[in-house]
Amino acid sequence: MKRRLLLVSNSTLHGGGYLDHCQQHISSFFGKNVKRVLFVPYALHDRDGYTKTARDKFKSLGYDVDGIHEVADPVEAVRKAEGIFIGGGNTFRLLKSLYDNNVVTEIRKRVMEDGVPYMGSSAGTNVATISISTTNDMPIVFPPTFSAIGLIPFNINPHYLDSDPNSRHMGETREQRITQYHEEPNTPCVLGLREGSMLLVEGKKATLLGTTKARLFTSGKPSVEYDPGSDLSFLLTDPMRS
Amino acid sequence: MKRRLLLVSNSTLHGGGYLDHCQQHISSFFGKNVKRVLFVPYALHDRDGYTKTARDKFKSLGYDVDGIHEVADPVEAVRKAEGIFIGGGNTFRLLKSLYDNNVVTEIRKRVMEDGVPYMGSSAGTNVATISISTTNDMPIVFPPTFSAIGLIPFNINPHYLDSDPNSRHMGETREQRITQYHEEPNTPCVLGLREGSMLLVEGKKATLLGTTKARLFTSGKPSVEYDPGSDLSFLLTDPMRS
Repeated sequence: MKRRLLLVSNSTLHGGGYLDHCQQHISSFFGKNVKRVLFVPYALHDRDGYTKTARDKFKSLGYDVDGIHEVADPVEAVRKAEGIFIGGGNTFRLLKSLYDNNVVTEIRKRVMEDGVPYMGSSAGTNVATISISTTNDMPIVFPPTFSAIGLIPFNINPHYLDSDPNSRHMGETREQRITQYHEEPNTPCVLGLREGSMLLVEGKKATLLGTTKARLFTSGKPSVEYDPGSDLSFLLTDPMRS
Repeated sequence: MKRRLLLVSNSTLHGGGYLDHCQQHISSFFGKNVKRVLFVPYALHDRDGYTKTARDKFKSLGYDVDGIHEVADPVEAVRKAEGIFIGGGNTFRLLKSLYDNNVVTEIRKRVMEDGVPYMGSSAGTNVATISISTTNDMPIVFPPTFSAIGLIPFNINPHYLDSDPNSRHMGETREQRITQYHEEPNTPCVLGLREGSMLLVEGKKATLLGTTKARLFTSGKPSVEYDPGSDLSFLLTDPMRS
């Protein structure tokens, strides 16, 4: 199991620039052996503009970026990739495009079998998990399934947001929405990654990184808070916490 | 065209009880001829509990309630219904259950051809529209399509929420999410119904009711605010505002 993942809650933290808050983690994650990163901009409509943003940021960290939409054969691009980064945006649009371009299986194979490092942010973190069932996004397009790349066997809710006790808004809180997910049968844990937090997965080890706590939701059990630095490896082997 | 719809943004307004804020509209909508209302509780997990809540409220307004899950044949229940109310909850769960129980076509027929009054709240409003693509809910189950009952040819975003200029949260605002929907081709208008507002549709006439403004989003055009009392009939004949 060569899997290496850096799953970031959010691309931009309030007051900072694009990926600023996690740039040191990005550098140590891709390291010195990776020279070029394959960027997947499918979650946003303006793929060229999005790739330029990612390219500029990664250039400043010493990496070249190829946009997967810039090449004739996306599957071949995944086969050759030294590292993969899937950016945020709309999760439904992203997942549908991944299937439309036949890269879901190939990305899984490259990451799980060949050890190609995978970074995801927001929607790119959602699609790395077992399914997109705990995305915050609107279903603007219809993907063939909600099953995702499945690099980890549980769900993540990026941009996890605590409910505001002073709010007069009556829409469901994030916690209520996740609870509704857990009313469905056989649903795995959901890791609520607050903005500023990220999950590093190396083989069978998972570690919470960043500056904010994460909240873990398990079907039928009370939710639990985890501090940055926590070892969450148990989620990789027992995603239902049964 | 006998269509009569009461599409409510939210079931409960801050500080009030279940359906309190729209009870006068409910009474005048169903009127004196309707004695029994068919309630569809599919959006919540606890169908019995939810039906009791609706039954108690409707009883206080002079209507008996049948829960569609309480009968052996849901399609037959729709065929006999004098009035229909679909409650809120998770829109994906609701739409999937409507298809699983084969009632989508029958509800459309009863409302559009037979003039059976249809009330929806929140998720029940989403499924009355052309599609659920502008729901706020998590995709906790996979429906066969995002196409909905199609009683109106445009989309609604219930619980529409203005962005908070003081927020430090970097997740997309509601407006940004709707804009992403409109980046997709051939997407109709989205009526953002703030909590407290509702849309009354009678044949080819649509009127905004309630106490809050609604915001109309059109692909490629600036969004527009409408006051309570506004005539929005143009959306029924030109849902793209072309």
